[in-house]
Amino acid sequence: MSENKPRIVVLGAGYAGMMTTKRLTQQFTEDEVEIVLVNKHNYHYQTTWLHEVAAGTINPNQSRIMIKDVINNKRVEFIQDAVVEIKKDSKKVVLENQEIDYDYLVIGLGFEKATFGIPGMEEYAFSIQDVEKSRLIREHIEYQFASYKNDPTQDHLLTFIVGGAGFTGIEFVGELAEKLPELCKKHDVDKNKVKIINIEMAPTILPGFDDDLLDYAKKSLEFRNVEFKTGTVIKEVKPDGVLIGEEKDEIKAATVVWTGGVQANRIVGNSGFELTKGKVNVDPTLRAPGHDEVFILGDCAWVMNQETGRPYPPTAQIAIQEADTCAHNIAASINGGELEEFHFDNKGTVASLGGKHAMGTIFDGHKLYGVQAKAMKNIIDDRYLFMLGGPLLVLKKGKFRPF
Amino acid sequence: MSENKPRIVVLGAGYAGMMTTKRLTQQFTEDEVEIVLVNKHNYHYQTTWLHEVAAGTINPNQSRIMIKDVINNKRVEFIQDAVVEIKKDSKKVVLENQEIDYDYLVIGLGFEKATFGIPGMEEYAFSIQDVEKSRLIREHIEYQFASYKNDPTQDHLLTFIVGGAGFTGIEFVGELAEKLPELCKKHDVDKNKVKIINIEMAPTILPGFDDDLLDYAKKSLEFRNVEFKTGTVIKEVKPDGVLIGEEKDEIKAATVVWTGGVQANRIVGNSGFELTKGKVNVDPTLRAPGHDEVFILGDCAWVMNQETGRPYPPTAQIAIQEADTCAHNIAASINGGELEEFHFDNKGTVASLGGKHAMGTIFDGHKLYGVQAKAMKNIIDDRYLFMLGGPLLVLKKGKFRPF
Repeated sequence: MSENKPRIVVLGAGYAGMMTTKRLTQQFTEDEVEIVLVNKHNYHYQTTWLHEVAAGTINPNQSRIMIKDVINNKRVEFIQDAVVEIKKDSKKVVLENQEIDYDYLVIGLGFEKATFGIPGMEEYAFSIQDVEKSRLIREHIEYQFASYKNDPTQDHLLTFIVGGAGFTGIEFVGELAEKLPELCKKHDVDKNKVKIINIEMAPTILPGFDDDLLDYAKKSLEFRNVEFKTGTVIKEVKPDGVLIGEEKDEIKAATVVWTGGVQANRIVGNSGFELTKGKVNVDPTLRAPGHDEVFILGDCAWVMNQETGRPYPPTAQIAIQEADTCAHNIAASINGGELEEFHFDNKGTVASLGGKHAMGTIFDGHKLYGVQAKAMKNIIDDRYLFMLGGPLLVLKKGKFRPF
Repeated sequence: MSENKPRIVVLGAGYAGMMTTKRLTQQFTEDEVEIVLVNKHNYHYQTTWLHEVAAGTINPNQSRIMIKDVINNKRVEFIQDAVVEIKKDSKKVVLENQEIDYDYLVIGLGFEKATFGIPGMEEYAFSIQDVEKSRLIREHIEYQFASYKNDPTQDHLLTFIVGGAGFTGIEFVGELAEKLPELCKKHDVDKNKVKIINIEMAPTILPGFDDDLLDYAKKSLEFRNVEFKTGTVIKEVKPDGVLIGEEKDEIKAATVVWTGGVQANRIVGNSGFELTKGKVNVDPTLRAPGHDEVFILGDCAWVMNQETGRPYPPTAQIAIQEADTCAHNIAASINGGELEEFHFDNKGTVASLGGKHAMGTIFDGHKLYGVQAKAMKNIIDDRYLFMLGGPLLVLKKGKFRPF
């Protein structure tokens, strides 16, 4: 490639990074720019399916897409390497095995667990963060069943605590509600011994959803033996349970999964970007403050909703839409033209509740429940695969569950 | 049933107990005796297949046979309960939920891990002892792979130590040699990172086998990356490895499975039977010293081989043949007649080495290797099922692996 072409480096092949890379190949011709995608693994994964990997309801490989299968390698140079540091003042990225320069940088490095300083959360709570951490949860869960069979006095081996009742927390307890009875059958365990407890600081589950939707979700999950403790703070996580509330009441549990908070990948803060509650408060065009050549997307960024004055939640749908704005704005920066502000076009939000259960809204605010919602959820998942890799990818990795 | 009929109680539904029960129903008519079988679970399991359950190469349910499916419940009263104590002087057995009387007692309560006082062996080493303990090993192994993927600096997560190179130890490393490469593939782990180490105090593996058979076994397993340390004593087991030899060299390993010694179920010793190296030294008719009405079989007993002056090894084949002698001798005791001494009729011994690999001898001393031996092994397994439950049981639980 020519030395004179601007070099755009995309860090991270999550929803934001993958779609930005794809859109950049559409915004520019081959001669105009050099596009580099850096990712630790040679695969992209469906973060929104990881709760299923963690519960063991889908095969981890279904959640993975080989990057070479969806990115045109004639247009994009793919570097499989881990990012160590971003030197924003000298426009360099330090990788484990090399250092690369950029003219424009897109940071889509995803999230990590935000523990809010809760003692023990870092050490003892699992996090549904990537394929490997999700798989660890899956194997851990089944190991608890086998351990319980060898010492049935240890009831806490069958208690599963999920901290946080946001999207991921609720979707995960939904999968547990489906999977754990299966494991009971497989391991000859009385299913009444299993406890699934969801603990949420806020007064309700799923903040942001309409009351009737979250009532539906709550009832559906309670019917499948999920116990909710809303308005309840986790004060401490211990190797064998949690302490909750002002009284620090103990709940014994061998498995604690924390979904209660995410923050930007620590590389972002360590590289000197200023953080607000763990993320970078980007301008409406998605640029980092003071660095017009650096765009920050997805879970690394706070993007303000101009209408509400509050940041958008960290969802895949928003990350994918940010990619459009980002690619457009890089093109405008290079070729001249006006940068656009990010506006979220809500196509609907559906939360899976495990098995055939789901609920949510579609674009016009219409509410969906049960199998209809589940069908919609699968359509949303398949639509993303279609955008990313066309019909063949939908066939290969799509969800065609009977419903 | 009549009060006057002698009551024969069989404790344990392992190979010895199941076959004795079966033979008793053949030795006696319905009017002659009352037969009671006591077992903790409602199933019998193939102890000789547990190494496969532990490695994860067969489904645990294939190793289990429901007792009601093979025992005639018109002839045998089955009590599902756990034995607490044998009161041999008052001819009573204390169960968890009741106490029962006997006129004749057959003890087939199986083995437990003999640790020879090696520090840490009880706490930190797994044992291929029953279905549940084997399943725990299986889940533990896969959990180590998932853990390694989350911290690839912890090489010891992929080191698997098997203590003991007797029948079970060698069969188990054979299964590991097949299974672990599969887990590497499933979890994206470089298979060169996996270590399987077999540690044996004796100078060779498989004592009792001919040199050319054990050479074959050793080469077959070494070819599949099993490392042998013969003439090596395990001095201590720690939570993360073992100390070996006089120098107490450390080998770090997250998984230690001990197959190096078995002794009678502790209930036997706790009930006042005198133990020799952990088992009861029965007379040639299989009776406990000083108790003509108590027969002890299988892993609970030392039965001397009159020709060699050494005890028979604890194998399924021997336990099954002991059942014949025991049933005959109970009949002789009740109906009058001469008690017979136990003589082992060696029908051949085949050790599975994982996958298609096996080796051993058949009744005439003819040696078998590879797929031929594997076929023979399956025939032996199926023959037992045939004896126990006829052709339908062979169809249901038999091994029809392609070879």
